[in-house]
Amino acid sequence: MDKILVIGSVALDTIATPVGAKKEVLGGSATYFSISSSFFTGVNLAATVGEDFPKKHSSLIESFGVNIDGLETKKGKTFRWHGSYVDDLNCAKTIDTQLNVFADFRPNIPKSYLDSKFIFLANIDPDQQLFILNKFKQSQLIGCDSMNYWIQNKRSSLKKLMKKVNFVFLNDAEAKLFSEESNILKAGKYLLSLGPEYAIIKRGEYGAALFAKDSILLLTPAYLLETVCDPTGAGDTFAGGFMGYLSKAGRINDTAVQKALLYGSVMASFTVEDFSVNRFSGLKKKDIEERYKKFRKLIMV
Amino acid sequence: MDKILVIGSVALDTIATPVGAKKEVLGGSATYFSISSSFFTGVNLAATVGEDFPKKHSSLIESFGVNIDGLETKKGKTFRWHGSYVDDLNCAKTIDTQLNVFADFRPNIPKSYLDSKFIFLANIDPDQQLFILNKFKQSQLIGCDSMNYWIQNKRSSLKKLMKKVNFVFLNDAEAKLFSEESNILKAGKYLLSLGPEYAIIKRGEYGAALFAKDSILLLTPAYLLETVCDPTGAGDTFAGGFMGYLSKAGRINDTAVQKALLYGSVMASFTVEDFSVNRFSGLKKKDIEERYKKFRKLIMV
Repeated sequence: MDKILVIGSVALDTIATPVGAKKEVLGGSATYFSISSSFFTGVNLAATVGEDFPKKHSSLIESFGVNIDGLETKKGKTFRWHGSYVDDLNCAKTIDTQLNVFADFRPNIPKSYLDSKFIFLANIDPDQQLFILNKFKQSQLIGCDSMNYWIQNKRSSLKKLMKKVNFVFLNDAEAKLFSEESNILKAGKYLLSLGPEYAIIKRGEYGAALFAKDSILLLTPAYLLETVCDPTGAGDTFAGGFMGYLSKAGRINDTAVQKALLYGSVMASFTVEDFSVNRFSGLKKKDIEERYKKFRKLIMV
Repeated sequence: MDKILVIGSVALDTIATPVGAKKEVLGGSATYFSISSSFFTGVNLAATVGEDFPKKHSSLIESFGVNIDGLETKKGKTFRWHGSYVDDLNCAKTIDTQLNVFADFRPNIPKSYLDSKFIFLANIDPDQQLFILNKFKQSQLIGCDSMNYWIQNKRSSLKKLMKKVNFVFLNDAEAKLFSEESNILKAGKYLLSLGPEYAIIKRGEYGAALFAKDSILLLTPAYLLETVCDPTGAGDTFAGGFMGYLSKAGRINDTAVQKALLYGSVMASFTVEDFSVNRFSGLKKKDIEERYKKFRKLIMV
């Protein structure tokens, strides 16, 4: 089976949502991505935590079969994020960010990771993303995420990065900001014009749009849930399901990528049902298949 | 072919959108509904206008094959609405409403209309909607719309109405207000619990959800457009395409109603491409079929 390497953050999150609040729970882009993709394929994780990072959290990530040889412990404290969705479940309000050891993140990438067929560069400085990519071969399949801060402050680096990635994942606000378009159809076409084979615009509770070859390839709503507990990590979980499915499928074509969009949506629908990555403990592959079937039925005539 | 009767408003709209502004153009729920459904079935229109209503507008409605025997001219001025979408394309800000002859709307329903198989009660006072329904047989298929004002001020009448309709169309804000739920899955189930066979929750640019038998039957995104000119009438156009398709299909079952949801979405996607009902002039049935096929392809794997 082909492996995925994810490079991103492992963090301690303090979260408030309309459903409740949690203090210093396991979070971070690489955490959500790796656990999500672990249901489909082998996963290598590269991230940095501080000396205060609880052993039980790294054990939990490992319990999903994720290779954590690249999870480095550095002197100092773990990256912490404090966010609230109390006013709007669709949009996190950041209360506090403490970068700590994540401030000068230079991932240590074990040699055994260098052959990973898929690489996901979670949201970090695009110059860092470019630097990391130099370690890899041209033949590898690259996905990346970014955010408003880098779009506003490192646009030219981000454009360079776009030339080197196969998949770009942005949410609708980010895609609109990057493209300077108010319309996601135009924004998607803009992203493709910069280089990626596939652009995925995530629309939160309204689903996602998949773009390829100058046009839109699939538009899906999100799986409807009666209760959303905590949206944290939904985007990284989505990307993990998407790229995890492709790795398992072993081929990249339009149909496989369309199915990947559905699997990404399904994985995101699970993670928001509980705080942190709790929903994945005890989740079975057959639960994923069942929800995938329900989702297809829900959206297709 | 079975006929549809629509009872609602014919109005003069003054509209500002990010694309431009129009003064006293043809509008009103019955106008949008009737023209939309005219592409599928025979349509009878019942509405009231004032003496100032331009003859060219009634001629235009008639040019789509709509029967306007029930379009009554009363002493006084035509209903006028002045709205703006400049700040938010998804939400009209009402600048001015002059009900005029619409204030005490008692539709004159010609005898020839009484056998219409489908009846659509556009958004008016639910007591009036109930009063009108008494003129009809139990066997007829009834659809209705409503709005926040009636939900807040005539909840018990609206609940009575729900017992008598087969289809209810509300937007997501209205459905949440009526159900007192913040979640559209719960809101849809609530609507079904009040009586309708099918509940349709419209989500504007994010599509629509169709509920039946205590659950959700289909969730679709909206057809993506590069430019939205004027969202006025999109909801009534949607309902017109939905019920028009069912009338043409000649049967009500889950598959037919799912397809109706797609046709409603397609018709709504046309109307927002131009001001007033301009987009429908020159539109051909084959244009609708083409977009329907593109839409299916866009949303299905």
